[in-house]
Amino acid sequence: MITKLQVKYIQSLGQKKFRDEEAVFIAEGPRIINELLGTSAMTPVAIYATGTWMQENMRADKNNPLFQVTEVKAAELERLSFLQTPNEVLGIFKKPVHAALDFSNALSLMLDGIQDPGNLGTIIRIADWFGIANIVCSKDCADAFAPKVVQATMGSIARVKLLYTDLPALAKKIEPIQLYAATLDGRSIHRLQPIKEAVLVTGNESKGISTALLDCCQHRITIPRLGQAESLNAAVATGIILSHLVGY
Amino acid sequence: MITKLQVKYIQSLGQKKFRDEEAVFIAEGPRIINELLGTSAMTPVAIYATGTWMQENMRADKNNPLFQVTEVKAAELERLSFLQTPNEVLGIFKKPVHAALDFSNALSLMLDGIQDPGNLGTIIRIADWFGIANIVCSKDCADAFAPKVVQATMGSIARVKLLYTDLPALAKKIEPIQLYAATLDGRSIHRLQPIKEAVLVTGNESKGISTALLDCCQHRITIPRLGQAESLNAAVATGIILSHLVGY
Repeated sequence: MITKLQVKYIQSLGQKKFRDEEAVFIAEGPRIINELLGTSAMTPVAIYATGTWMQENMRADKNNPLFQVTEVKAAELERLSFLQTPNEVLGIFKKPVHAALDFSNALSLMLDGIQDPGNLGTIIRIADWFGIANIVCSKDCADAFAPKVVQATMGSIARVKLLYTDLPALAKKIEPIQLYAATLDGRSIHRLQPIKEAVLVTGNESKGISTALLDCCQHRITIPRLGQAESLNAAVATGIILSHLVGY
Repeated sequence: MITKLQVKYIQSLGQKKFRDEEAVFIAEGPRIINELLGTSAMTPVAIYATGTWMQENMRADKNNPLFQVTEVKAAELERLSFLQTPNEVLGIFKKPVHAALDFSNALSLMLDGIQDPGNLGTIIRIADWFGIANIVCSKDCADAFAPKVVQATMGSIARVKLLYTDLPALAKKIEPIQLYAATLDGRSIHRLQPIKEAVLVTGNESKGISTALLDCCQHRITIPRLGQAESLNAAVATGIILSHLVGY
């Protein structure tokens, strides 16, 4: 049974303002929830789940005192859910807080104005696939803790470190680490050697990388175009370039 | 001014059944419409556009007798549109009919049960970027002419040849052309030489490639996983593998 206040609270977390104030975010569905509950990097605050999910997942720690677990009916979950098809369980988790990121001896990502929540979530999943720990977003990127982004990460949000900051300022701070800008007029990715320490910079879906940040990039790289599409999706381009940068 | 009958007809084209019966599809927005109007591969049937779009685009051929152009108000376009934010122009085009596809001396794609319209559209755009002309879909793939897919192709639907057919049967028919299955347990893409003639097979978002089709594939290839994500998005994986297969 859920109260009107709980419904209202959860719905408010659809808005960045309230997520920031409360320092929490929402995740949904057994797959992601189980990944988030299974990692020490994430702290659950509350879980709302149907009887089915409860039976399958909460046997051992039903009385776990660290977070609140509420059994809800399917119709109640529907009122809470941000998904078109609500899926057994919804959880509220604390937004992880990371100490300063370490860019040395690693490939990292900078995202400059990625607007589409699906793209941002997919990029986080790609980073996790390639073992990339650091993702730095410009302040005008979509919020990585928005419900749609969290869903699109498929659980990878639990494993990457996210930071929102001024990218040109950070670029200067981490010198001499080299920035590789994904552009349409750079060096072919097929002519790159695998790189152990660098930052790949991906820009906005239509405008690309801002001039201020592009000025900080030591390299421009490009996926050669053999056909006629005007561009590639930002997440797809990030995946292709990373695959060539990691190189094995 | 649009009639109720026109609204009803356009809305019916949201359904595959009616698109198939009428052999037409819908596209929206200046960018895609202008791409589709600009290629001889596509035959427009009707255009519904706001005054703004008309002024900018129809000066020369306002009396073009080949297809019907109707000026509509923004509010009318909203009634017709399949987009969340209707965008100046909606067009009805004939579905292109292709003679048998030619797989020799080319890289082609087979899609086995790609369900998500966004993924399918993104894959069509990727194919167009890499100059891949042939995309063969299993019959349980999403319909490439659904409004959401057409939008996600960003105009590339005009430049690729699409065929829906039984994939294992086709695989046998085109022998000895080799099929490369994208799997989680194959040979690393980094160990492949660029290939001039082959078919890349991408499977369903969660179930992968069906056993019947996998049995027809001579090669299994994999994007090495360095991190912990369980999988990559199907479109991203297709893009990464193609980038290595085309190889320059």
